[in-house]
Amino acid sequence: MTNKSVIKELAVKTDSKIVFVVLDGIGGHSLTPTGKTELEKAHTPNLNKLASLSILGLSNPIAPGITPGSGPGHLGLFGYDPFKSNIGRGVLAALGIGFSLKTSDIAARINFCTVNSKGIITDRRAGRIPTSLCSRLVEELDKIKIKGVEIFIRAVRDHRASLIIRGKNLGGDISDSDPQKIGLKPKPLTGKDIASKRTIKIANQFVLKAQEIIANKKPANMVLLRGFAKYQKIPSMKEIYKLNPSCIAVYPMYKGVARLVGMKILKGGETLDDEIDVLKEKFNNHDFFFLHVKKTDSAGEDGKFKQKVKVIEDFDKKLPKILNLEPDVIVITGDHSTPSILKGHSWHPVPLLIYSKYCRPDAANKFGESDCLRGGLGMINATDIMTLAMANALKLEKFGA
Amino acid sequence: MTNKSVIKELAVKTDSKIVFVVLDGIGGHSLTPTGKTELEKAHTPNLNKLASLSILGLSNPIAPGITPGSGPGHLGLFGYDPFKSNIGRGVLAALGIGFSLKTSDIAARINFCTVNSKGIITDRRAGRIPTSLCSRLVEELDKIKIKGVEIFIRAVRDHRASLIIRGKNLGGDISDSDPQKIGLKPKPLTGKDIASKRTIKIANQFVLKAQEIIANKKPANMVLLRGFAKYQKIPSMKEIYKLNPSCIAVYPMYKGVARLVGMKILKGGETLDDEIDVLKEKFNNHDFFFLHVKKTDSAGEDGKFKQKVKVIEDFDKKLPKILNLEPDVIVITGDHSTPSILKGHSWHPVPLLIYSKYCRPDAANKFGESDCLRGGLGMINATDIMTLAMANALKLEKFGA
Repeated sequence: MTNKSVIKELAVKTDSKIVFVVLDGIGGHSLTPTGKTELEKAHTPNLNKLASLSILGLSNPIAPGITPGSGPGHLGLFGYDPFKSNIGRGVLAALGIGFSLKTSDIAARINFCTVNSKGIITDRRAGRIPTSLCSRLVEELDKIKIKGVEIFIRAVRDHRASLIIRGKNLGGDISDSDPQKIGLKPKPLTGKDIASKRTIKIANQFVLKAQEIIANKKPANMVLLRGFAKYQKIPSMKEIYKLNPSCIAVYPMYKGVARLVGMKILKGGETLDDEIDVLKEKFNNHDFFFLHVKKTDSAGEDGKFKQKVKVIEDFDKKLPKILNLEPDVIVITGDHSTPSILKGHSWHPVPLLIYSKYCRPDAANKFGESDCLRGGLGMINATDIMTLAMANALKLEKFGA
Repeated sequence: MTNKSVIKELAVKTDSKIVFVVLDGIGGHSLTPTGKTELEKAHTPNLNKLASLSILGLSNPIAPGITPGSGPGHLGLFGYDPFKSNIGRGVLAALGIGFSLKTSDIAARINFCTVNSKGIITDRRAGRIPTSLCSRLVEELDKIKIKGVEIFIRAVRDHRASLIIRGKNLGGDISDSDPQKIGLKPKPLTGKDIASKRTIKIANQFVLKAQEIIANKKPANMVLLRGFAKYQKIPSMKEIYKLNPSCIAVYPMYKGVARLVGMKILKGGETLDDEIDVLKEKFNNHDFFFLHVKKTDSAGEDGKFKQKVKVIEDFDKKLPKILNLEPDVIVITGDHSTPSILKGHSWHPVPLLIYSKYCRPDAANKFGESDCLRGGLGMINATDIMTLAMANALKLEKFGA
């Protein structure tokens, strides 16, 4: 990827507008060796028409063979090297619920879980308790005080919550207590540096006090901690690209990443129609729009091939509403693949489409994995997508003019 | 790209000959989304015949989405990482007119421009004054003396000239005074380190004195400075590749880059026929020939699609004269794309052809963007082209023998 200091030097402010659509987990896999993927199976006349005017390709979110989490996946799309900008999920989750992190705060993800009388985990998600119950439990836990630091507990969604520790000399290089399996006890937290060890002592006190409070609640009678991370500011998209970027997303997680890179979070409803309405309404106010579509990933995660096809077809039907706004550049891609056959994120390269008047269209004219493979962009790193979007928007001056 | 120390270790001297043709700005763009590019539109039977015996591909001059200037573009082609070998245009311009730079000299580009009575720029190029007038103005300015340093002013071409500052403790990390727009005053020069700040004071004195001299000249009554750089030697192609390289080019700029990497500049005429005559005449004296064709770029810069097609067809007609010399390796590519539709350099990958007896020809047999996309070289970085040329010339030993 191009060094951000070079991009910063070349970027110019112009009136052109970029709409960057992330169909979460869009890359897929066929159910049989010679079959079609979810995206190839879908009837997508609008995407295909756009593809015929666009340049296609495949992108590697992180590196060949590496399956990205949502955080690194999105950071890569926004041009941040996910290895160098390795921001823990704890931080992303806290940002995602709108918690105002301060520099050096430590954030971790809490999962409410169920343990038996011997302390062995019987359900890692406590039966996915409703958010309302989660909020009530969190209200109790938020009363916990620990000497020398401030502690904040906030509900996220279902059985998930956030733990934030604020204080001096804290470290975030801490392992998870979630053993990722039932039938085991929570794992002890471990860390190597002094600051992280100090933070582990605080986290252990928190877990002890939390356990006392919820021991008799059912089914959520214990907490697991994971994704510890220290919050550190990173250069904003405004600083790097001279953009005035905005985010249209439903789920907190994606808003969190967007906030981290300095996007304005646009308020809106819960459906794709709502999201497109927001895009239309705010189209004059920004020059970059990150529009996140969650349900492609959810269907893949649930292993529902047909459902994923349906979500894609639904997006295709609504695509003209985006095209009618006539953005100068349209990027359509995903943060990673989520093949239904794998019921989870995967390492497979992700279909990528870039449209602009100057994109140099290729012969590929169906937005699907096989056509993208023959596309004019070839196989690129996700971290190069933003540079290409900027170039197509004529927002980059030449290097060494 | 492969580290130059590795190439240096593997390179061997042999009798095989490489002809490296740079069709400046050869990459293009169609006028309509489904149309053909300049190169695809051109009738090129000779190039196509060669393509059928060659391996094709596309190259990224710098990095995806980055539009290269001519200097970095050519450095990349010769295997020098344009980010790491960032040699300012000031240095390249001075080299290009044959000025003998000394290590640590500071060089900048001068543009004669027109300002109104309020000092506001009304023409950044002073109506592109003829080189003869430029030379007369330069003669006056070259008399300027500044205490503690030596100052050299040399004419380049049209409204362009070179400023060279020679002295101790000078720095070249200085911004441009050219605001790149009319209707504005020249920007103040800025720099961060002490040496550059010291140099700015000298440059400001120069501008002040220059302005006094030319204030009443029309239309060139002011100077703009850009591309400040410090001259520092870089490893030569002889050191890295064990080649005895030569350059056949008409424009000073390209001779400058060639001189920087240690090529011998072969004297010749002004036309492509002249250049090919020189190649023929000196074919026994060197094992590497950089042959530069400028007019593809000029036509693109002028936005003349048909003219660019014509220049390409003209080159095609003359190609057999090069082939008749039977070089062992022929590379045909560009330093960047210059689509007529954009009237300037662009980020688009550049068509690339490598011919040798051992190139492993692919199914692509038309030298054009679409065929190159399906070529056996795939999408590569320009910095890898020299390594491939050397390999095809059987001039590289195996690594880890």
